[in-house]
Amino acid sequence: MKTHTLNVDLGERSYPIVIGSGLLGGGYDLSSHISSQSCFVVSNDTVAPLYLDKLTECLPGLDTPSISLPDGEAFKTVATAQSILDELVCCRAGRDITVVALGGGVVGDIAGFAAACYMRGVSFVQVPTTLLAQVDSSVGGKTGVNHPGGKNLVGAFHQPEIVLIDTDTLTTLSDRELRAGLAEVIKYGASIDSGFLDWLEENMEALLARDADKLAYAIQRCCEIKARVVAEDEKEAGVRALLNFGHTFGHAIENSVGYGEWLHGEAVAVGMVMAAELSGISATDQCRLKSLISAAGLPVSPPLTRAGQLQDAMQLDKKILAGKLRFVLLRELGEAYVTDDYDATTLATVLAGAET
Amino acid sequence: MKTHTLNVDLGERSYPIVIGSGLLGGGYDLSSHISSQSCFVVSNDTVAPLYLDKLTECLPGLDTPSISLPDGEAFKTVATAQSILDELVCCRAGRDITVVALGGGVVGDIAGFAAACYMRGVSFVQVPTTLLAQVDSSVGGKTGVNHPGGKNLVGAFHQPEIVLIDTDTLTTLSDRELRAGLAEVIKYGASIDSGFLDWLEENMEALLARDADKLAYAIQRCCEIKARVVAEDEKEAGVRALLNFGHTFGHAIENSVGYGEWLHGEAVAVGMVMAAELSGISATDQCRLKSLISAAGLPVSPPLTRAGQLQDAMQLDKKILAGKLRFVLLRELGEAYVTDDYDATTLATVLAGAET
Repeated sequence: MKTHTLNVDLGERSYPIVIGSGLLGGGYDLSSHISSQSCFVVSNDTVAPLYLDKLTECLPGLDTPSISLPDGEAFKTVATAQSILDELVCCRAGRDITVVALGGGVVGDIAGFAAACYMRGVSFVQVPTTLLAQVDSSVGGKTGVNHPGGKNLVGAFHQPEIVLIDTDTLTTLSDRELRAGLAEVIKYGASIDSGFLDWLEENMEALLARDADKLAYAIQRCCEIKARVVAEDEKEAGVRALLNFGHTFGHAIENSVGYGEWLHGEAVAVGMVMAAELSGISATDQCRLKSLISAAGLPVSPPLTRAGQLQDAMQLDKKILAGKLRFVLLRELGEAYVTDDYDATTLATVLAGAET
Repeated sequence: MKTHTLNVDLGERSYPIVIGSGLLGGGYDLSSHISSQSCFVVSNDTVAPLYLDKLTECLPGLDTPSISLPDGEAFKTVATAQSILDELVCCRAGRDITVVALGGGVVGDIAGFAAACYMRGVSFVQVPTTLLAQVDSSVGGKTGVNHPGGKNLVGAFHQPEIVLIDTDTLTTLSDRELRAGLAEVIKYGASIDSGFLDWLEENMEALLARDADKLAYAIQRCCEIKARVVAEDEKEAGVRALLNFGHTFGHAIENSVGYGEWLHGEAVAVGMVMAAELSGISATDQCRLKSLISAAGLPVSPPLTRAGQLQDAMQLDKKILAGKLRFVLLRELGEAYVTDDYDATTLATVLAGAET
């Protein structure tokens, strides 16, 4: 495949998304995007042994001190962000440091938040190595950590200088992580692009078989949508909220079962099924979405929780406004909207499905 | 005195600075600047008993949960910011919450940082009650906390919706806090406005005697300068750095003696004397600045520290760029510039004055 470059158009803060094979290991020179003599790489114990050396080859002539975090959503905390800040201080990093995130969504979110806070904001580069991070979390500048009370409650908008996506990294991804990424891929189709949903139905088998061209196409299509939406609504005052389809339920599941028990993508998969049910779209369309999610090897039923637990957890979702829960619902597949006008009885039924 | 309103011109993020007597206690209605039904007040154990009720009268019809922090720079930490975030979660505050800072520079900096991080940024209002906060830290959107390794190393740029300055709050300020605020007042004159420096020399006695009209004039003049500089250079890429005159030495002093031992303004006072010496301006002008600082009842000599301690602490100043220390120096009184081209021997002499 060829290298493909998209642009996230945010005026002075615009940046490229570069997608291709063989970019790590020196195939792409990142140094033109880094203004100082040194950068600081944040990775984790799974990804660093595989790709840290290859990343270094993309940073010729630069000092590259690094930190390796423990792997997993359970470590996406203020304490972990603070450990990065401590290391930056320890390295005597100046305002001109560039923080480079090498890993999945958790690494990108924490590293980006640390970059946003260090000296009131230093440069940041995203090198996502999971499908989920490549199609979603690395693009758009959302950074943050979890709070015991709710997902991503502490964070910042902080756009990267560049997003570098080497699709070869997917070859070392576990099946479970691949499937979790496909949940976010499906989200784009279900919420915003019915044509893409059709394509996914035709190609899910090939994607699960890690067909490199199909995966690259899916990544590119998702990044195109994300780049367009973020350019239109960086701070999520409007259309960007549609990309949270499945996430209100999903975040509540993650919070209820404990961060890290379910992968984010797994929780979003079930969250999409629940949101479709609350939407009241036709049984056929609900079934179609559920089948696609199942075909991706993802769960379609929530974990069993104590009565009221999901409801309580949802109250802390960031999408709550003036005390009233808001949901991203579907008019039909491929057409989402945000509303606080939903059927309370249906919501109770949807949530009851998750109760022991 | 009349109420005086200035504007900080930052496009969509522009905001007013309202300066006057009798604004707290219901003299000014803040509710038009608050978009939700509730706000969250951050104050401290010294200020809350004096002014929290009066602030509430400026927020008619709104819920006003609050938190009172321990008083002092020693508590300007990530842990304190996190205690505010915990309280916001505990109150189930939504994205539409407004955080109101009622207190001095420490309260404003921490509360602003918490507002910047909660749900990736919520609205923020500054009600500064110390001279230092009124003339400097409440305007311009710099927020943050200290790191054991350096002052304000963790933070964000997050502009308020309004800065409400009730000059009556100065009547309850301790003499020591008043003098510390005068250090930042002198800074504006010394770095950027020689006419104001002349005025300060003539009126220092009246300011120390808390002449209300003179204090109000000084606050207004400082806010005018700050608003103009911030509008021109919000993120401190250029001219805004001049307002750090005295701060590289000052931060090093604060860090070396332990946060809270010296007030920020006291450290800046000595920092200005040291920076003037490093600048190599005429002995007459150095003497003139030193006399004014002395007349304000502020220290002009650094605390005694271990050899090399100030130098080490300075290495972590945010103004360091690519390993080279940068200083704000004076061409003459009222005309500062930023440089990394300074006389190393003179620096050594200046620092030696602080060594045992």
